[in-house]
Amino acid sequence: MFPGVTFAPAMTDPDGIVEADAFIGRIPAEVYTQAGSKLRWVHSTGAGIETIIAIPELVASEIVVTNTRGAHAPFVAEHAFALLLSLGRNLAGFAYDQRDHVYRAYGRDVPMYSVYGKRMLILGMGNIGRAIARRALAFDMDVVGLDLMAPEETTGDLRVLPMEHLDIELQTADVVMVAVPYTAETDNLIDARRIGLIKPDAVVIGISRGRIIDEAALAERLRDGSLAGAGLDVFAQEPLPADHFLWDAPNLVMTPHCAPKSAQTRDREFEITFENVRRFVGGEPLLNVCDKVAGF
Amino acid sequence: MFPGVTFAPAMTDPDGIVEADAFIGRIPAEVYTQAGSKLRWVHSTGAGIETIIAIPELVASEIVVTNTRGAHAPFVAEHAFALLLSLGRNLAGFAYDQRDHVYRAYGRDVPMYSVYGKRMLILGMGNIGRAIARRALAFDMDVVGLDLMAPEETTGDLRVLPMEHLDIELQTADVVMVAVPYTAETDNLIDARRIGLIKPDAVVIGISRGRIIDEAALAERLRDGSLAGAGLDVFAQEPLPADHFLWDAPNLVMTPHCAPKSAQTRDREFEITFENVRRFVGGEPLLNVCDKVAGF
Repeated sequence: MFPGVTFAPAMTDPDGIVEADAFIGRIPAEVYTQAGSKLRWVHSTGAGIETIIAIPELVASEIVVTNTRGAHAPFVAEHAFALLLSLGRNLAGFAYDQRDHVYRAYGRDVPMYSVYGKRMLILGMGNIGRAIARRALAFDMDVVGLDLMAPEETTGDLRVLPMEHLDIELQTADVVMVAVPYTAETDNLIDARRIGLIKPDAVVIGISRGRIIDEAALAERLRDGSLAGAGLDVFAQEPLPADHFLWDAPNLVMTPHCAPKSAQTRDREFEITFENVRRFVGGEPLLNVCDKVAGF
Repeated sequence: MFPGVTFAPAMTDPDGIVEADAFIGRIPAEVYTQAGSKLRWVHSTGAGIETIIAIPELVASEIVVTNTRGAHAPFVAEHAFALLLSLGRNLAGFAYDQRDHVYRAYGRDVPMYSVYGKRMLILGMGNIGRAIARRALAFDMDVVGLDLMAPEETTGDLRVLPMEHLDIELQTADVVMVAVPYTAETDNLIDARRIGLIKPDAVVIGISRGRIIDEAALAERLRDGSLAGAGLDVFAQEPLPADHFLWDAPNLVMTPHCAPKSAQTRDREFEITFENVRRFVGGEPLLNVCDKVAGF
């Protein structure tokens, strides 16, 4: 495929890094310390690069970091909707009923709600946030996106505002969709104070990374019944330990950080990765170059 | 609200039907037999009218039947997507895992799939079918609708074809969405032979009425693993008995005929019902007049 290029699998050929020009994958810190001076490109086959830029020497170096951003957007957006609809349509409750052969006609005694006409606040208007917005608009939702970088805009039914509007927007949102990347700026962005601003009938969905939402404050509002529900695919600690307080929080739907997973995802990741290898070999500018300081 | 109009609750004032000009609700056959000659309008506060037109004397009469079609479309479409996404995103499996405090990182050993780029075949392109189509297009699906009445059309990305294309379209669809009303023509429409035409990696969603899909043939394909999954909100027999063979069919997600249920549904049903009462009292043409012979 690429004559003259040797691919050394990091798992079976750990010494390959010494002579490597590039590393495909989220390079572990201990592998990076063994890299030679030829290393000039690290490519994350996922969207997040937080483990890569946690290596200060790599950030300070000339090494270019790229990712597969955009590849995961439709899949993560779909999973975000699965979590959201699961809450309103009581899918977990009906799954337990099915196992027990219990038919509650018309969802009797089960509160059910629709996203129709509700307001979704999306934090992070990158590819994933925009993919979520497009789906939310098709579900007849009112959509407001906040972003740290994107300029203020109104395109059709979609409004994008600066992140400064966060506190006020949290107070009117029916769905708080957390899709920002994890960076120094978004660490604990939805802290206990801001969780306190969210309406009682609202739901919170966390789809990008843990450590952005204060899990203890979220669980507290779920337990005291002052928040309608939450859906989390990401956690501050992964894998989530069996004795973690989140497991049994009421009206919480949890999935094990699998939002991007699908039979189609690898095809799209591979397309971008393959194209970047082609460009790297040919000396062309790479796709999806990340800002190592901003963190995405 | 309507001076000169008396509303007699059928439950507490059963004799009210003798003098009634109109009946709001799905009139029971035994109530209809007691109706006087003044009765000239029956209004279903739901979309289905099959119990009303099961009364031959009513069908043969001059009585006008209306329903609240359109009121439920966004809610039923949302529930249809909840069933569809539940299958691909393994929501029932993760609900069981959550109860057991089991974290399968990245959905390890769990097959997960996305609707991205897949083809959805929608049977029935009324308000509900169209609401489903709009959402499917936003999820980057390829959408084909079949309808018994609607003319052939291509609007943007949406193609609508006559029902004659059913057998051929069943063979290429990744998602078979059954949204036709229950009528003499749609009774057992997806019979055992047609279930046999559906691809092994496809899923079937039933969202309108039972008796349209052959449940035994569907369950057989789920049990022998020759069909990826199914989601049913409606059943031939409701409530579904505890010993029914569907409960334990693998890769089947079931909900108890609650697709239209939400806090917002009654508001929309009431809007249409109220408007029709206003029109009836004022002698104006009613909204949503049904074809008692066609059955919707």
